[in-house]
Amino acid sequence: MHEPFMQQAIRLAEEKLSRAEGGPFAALVVRENQVIGQGWNRVVAGNDPTAHAEIVAIRDACQQLQSFSLAGCRLYVNCEPCPMCLAAAYWAGLDAIYYGATREDAAAIGFADAHIYEELGRPLSARRLPLSQLMRAEALKAFARWDALPDKIRY
Amino acid sequence: MHEPFMQQAIRLAEEKLSRAEGGPFAALVVRENQVIGQGWNRVVAGNDPTAHAEIVAIRDACQQLQSFSLAGCRLYVNCEPCPMCLAAAYWAGLDAIYYGATREDAAAIGFADAHIYEELGRPLSARRLPLSQLMRAEALKAFARWDALPDKIRY
Repeated sequence: MHEPFMQQAIRLAEEKLSRAEGGPFAALVVRENQVIGQGWNRVVAGNDPTAHAEIVAIRDACQQLQSFSLAGCRLYVNCEPCPMCLAAAYWAGLDAIYYGATREDAAAIGFADAHIYEELGRPLSARRLPLSQLMRAEALKAFARWDALPDKIRY
Repeated sequence: MHEPFMQQAIRLAEEKLSRAEGGPFAALVVRENQVIGQGWNRVVAGNDPTAHAEIVAIRDACQQLQSFSLAGCRLYVNCEPCPMCLAAAYWAGLDAIYYGATREDAAAIGFADAHIYEELGRPLSARRLPLSQLMRAEALKAFARWDALPDKIRY
């Protein structure tokens, strides 16, 4: 049941690659065996570093469903997701991910994400991208206001 | 030099919270001490689980610059970024991140991301969100075609 969807994702990547629209990546969101969202890499074409295939497909499916939840859906992508896309899959509540090539395969053609996986596991003080904290007390005021809202939508 | 930008991010979060547009989060992208992008949480308002403040601000700044790179830019956000947003900051090439509240502060009002940080550090086979590989050989064909392109734009 999974191969036809993976085949479709791979074909989409190849099609977009032919048009030189960016990296060779594509993804589908499937619900009850129907494709409800698709995406391909648009980092270069769209001037958007967050426009990885998976992110674009998740956003497309959510617009289709008019929901911020993709519970009950599966993601098919021609390559193992990077940390950004994997974290997005958790926020979207996807049920499962099916992928083709590995992160090592992606690294071999110039799309390395091992350094990001490593960075995320490090304490903030040891990261290459400096993270500094300031004005925590001021920032907490908005949090307290949110927490006191009776009708907030949790997600 | 950092406090006024953080103050502006906190104020933006409070303003959007007043309009009940979603979680109490906002971010700014700053380049040469000018705000070139801003974002606030639009997960609920936009039916988009990827629309965290940082992602929205990064996309906004990139449209402003017409570039997928934010090298030379800083991100100001009223809360420590989740793994998705932190990974996006690496892909965007940001120089530094300044944040207000901590991930523990966010968890205390219902926005927990510790489980995602933990999951990313686990081997694929041990994750709660199942990841399965199939059709690697077929997927690698598009990668080989990309690798052979003479005029590809690396990012």
